[in-house]
Amino acid sequence: MAMEGYRGFLGLLVSALLVGFLSVIFTLIWVLHYRKGLGWDGGALEFNWHPVLMVTGFVFIQGIAIIVYRLPWTWRCSKFLMKSIHAGLNTIAAILAIVALVAVFDYHNVGSIPNMYSLHSWLGLAAVILYVLQLLLGFFIFLLPWAPVSLRAVAMPIHVYSGLFLFGTVIATSLMGVTEKLFFVLKDPAYSTSPPEGLFTNTLGLLMVLFGALILWIATRPQWKRPKEPDSTLLQSNGGAAEAMEGSVAVNLANNPDKSDPDPNSEARKRNFALDETGQRSTM
Amino acid sequence: MAMEGYRGFLGLLVSALLVGFLSVIFTLIWVLHYRKGLGWDGGALEFNWHPVLMVTGFVFIQGIAIIVYRLPWTWRCSKFLMKSIHAGLNTIAAILAIVALVAVFDYHNVGSIPNMYSLHSWLGLAAVILYVLQLLLGFFIFLLPWAPVSLRAVAMPIHVYSGLFLFGTVIATSLMGVTEKLFFVLKDPAYSTSPPEGLFTNTLGLLMVLFGALILWIATRPQWKRPKEPDSTLLQSNGGAAEAMEGSVAVNLANNPDKSDPDPNSEARKRNFALDETGQRSTM
Repeated sequence: MAMEGYRGFLGLLVSALLVGFLSVIFTLIWVLHYRKGLGWDGGALEFNWHPVLMVTGFVFIQGIAIIVYRLPWTWRCSKFLMKSIHAGLNTIAAILAIVALVAVFDYHNVGSIPNMYSLHSWLGLAAVILYVLQLLLGFFIFLLPWAPVSLRAVAMPIHVYSGLFLFGTVIATSLMGVTEKLFFVLKDPAYSTSPPEGLFTNTLGLLMVLFGALILWIATRPQWKRPKEPDSTLLQSNGGAAEAMEGSVAVNLANNPDKSDPDPNSEARKRNFALDETGQRSTM
Repeated sequence: MAMEGYRGFLGLLVSALLVGFLSVIFTLIWVLHYRKGLGWDGGALEFNWHPVLMVTGFVFIQGIAIIVYRLPWTWRCSKFLMKSIHAGLNTIAAILAIVALVAVFDYHNVGSIPNMYSLHSWLGLAAVILYVLQLLLGFFIFLLPWAPVSLRAVAMPIHVYSGLFLFGTVIATSLMGVTEKLFFVLKDPAYSTSPPEGLFTNTLGLLMVLFGALILWIATRPQWKRPKEPDSTLLQSNGGAAEAMEGSVAVNLANNPDKSDPDPNSEARKRNFALDETGQRSTM
């Protein structure tokens, strides 16, 4: 299926993957080269799993999970398959984030360091709890077939917004974590003298911001939204209501059954974008 | 002019104003009660202007500037007036942010503290520079009448996205600033013992995140977008092109000249939302 602005999409997607991958590599270099490596010993090596798992799971994998519907190569796959992949990637991200929390709590407890006093810890724990809640609500409302279409319609804009906002909050919390850690460990030479570790880890912070900017841009372009199609689950369980809500889109697909629209600017294509799954006009 | 979901909008707007105002009050209490007040002496009292001006200008006023088009009471005002208010508020925010930078550079220079070594400083300076660039581009492309409509069409989604992304980045940078400052100053009792100042200032951080969440939600709801109308400036300078790009919207307004649409769910109202200023479907 043709995608409007396909080349631009591809360029930004490759950039996002590259910058996200670089963020993970930079985090690994930070802990392996500058911070003495990884271990599960209750000490600093165990703490080091915290940034590695957070950047890999909660930043990089979460970012990919957000844009997975927008890959045009997946538009021929069923919506159910794509929802399962979206939920699966988010579940992996949540598990890695929880293990990352275990690492830092364990490190604190073994070393008798207080837990949960910093703004980073408050915001980070809130983000993990809300992320798990978002995952569970998404599972019951959108993946399982039982939720009424009216509930899905109300929940979809909230689900999309919460997802993007939590992603941004996770990146902000990571930046605060980098800030805390550098002030803790860079004493001689001090962080304020801009030693190589300071410059290197600041650059990691900028890479995460750039990754966030690319993912959020890709995720909010209306022209790159997965084209609407009658959702078989919806139609099975709520045929009449789903048909009514999806309005002109269903008509449009019926008029254009082969779906391989050769002209990305055609009227049919534009009408495909006129309403989203919930019957609302939305880019998010 | 009627607004869909007006009560919800009003509730969220009042919440945003309250939370934003509380953030400013919390910042003032922080510096006046816990951090010995304000001054312009090259010392800590001068530094204290940095958080006060950043939270007031770069967070609160920038947030209001973002949603000013969405206040339904302004929908009868000309687009040019609203653009001027939007640009004016963003100019005030930029000036306050620049004075806040002067305060911290002056404080560092007087006390021989290095500048620009932390991730907070890198991201914060980048945000101020990009914000001023955004303001200048917005002024020349959207406020002055000379830019061709095709340039406006290309620039509008970028302008809107950059604005929202910079707003989020500014809040993230503020959270990093709070984190840095609390680790610097809370030594006895230490930040890790959760003294009142730590708890109070962490709460300020959460308030700023909540303010960001409310502003970004209001700014991205399609149903609260200012209804499209023929832009007199556009039509004067680029009549034909503007007419072509604004398509069905212009037709719709011609069919409904009194504009005081009594039914927020009418077809005419819905079509008002079908295309934005640039002829694209966009909620941002």
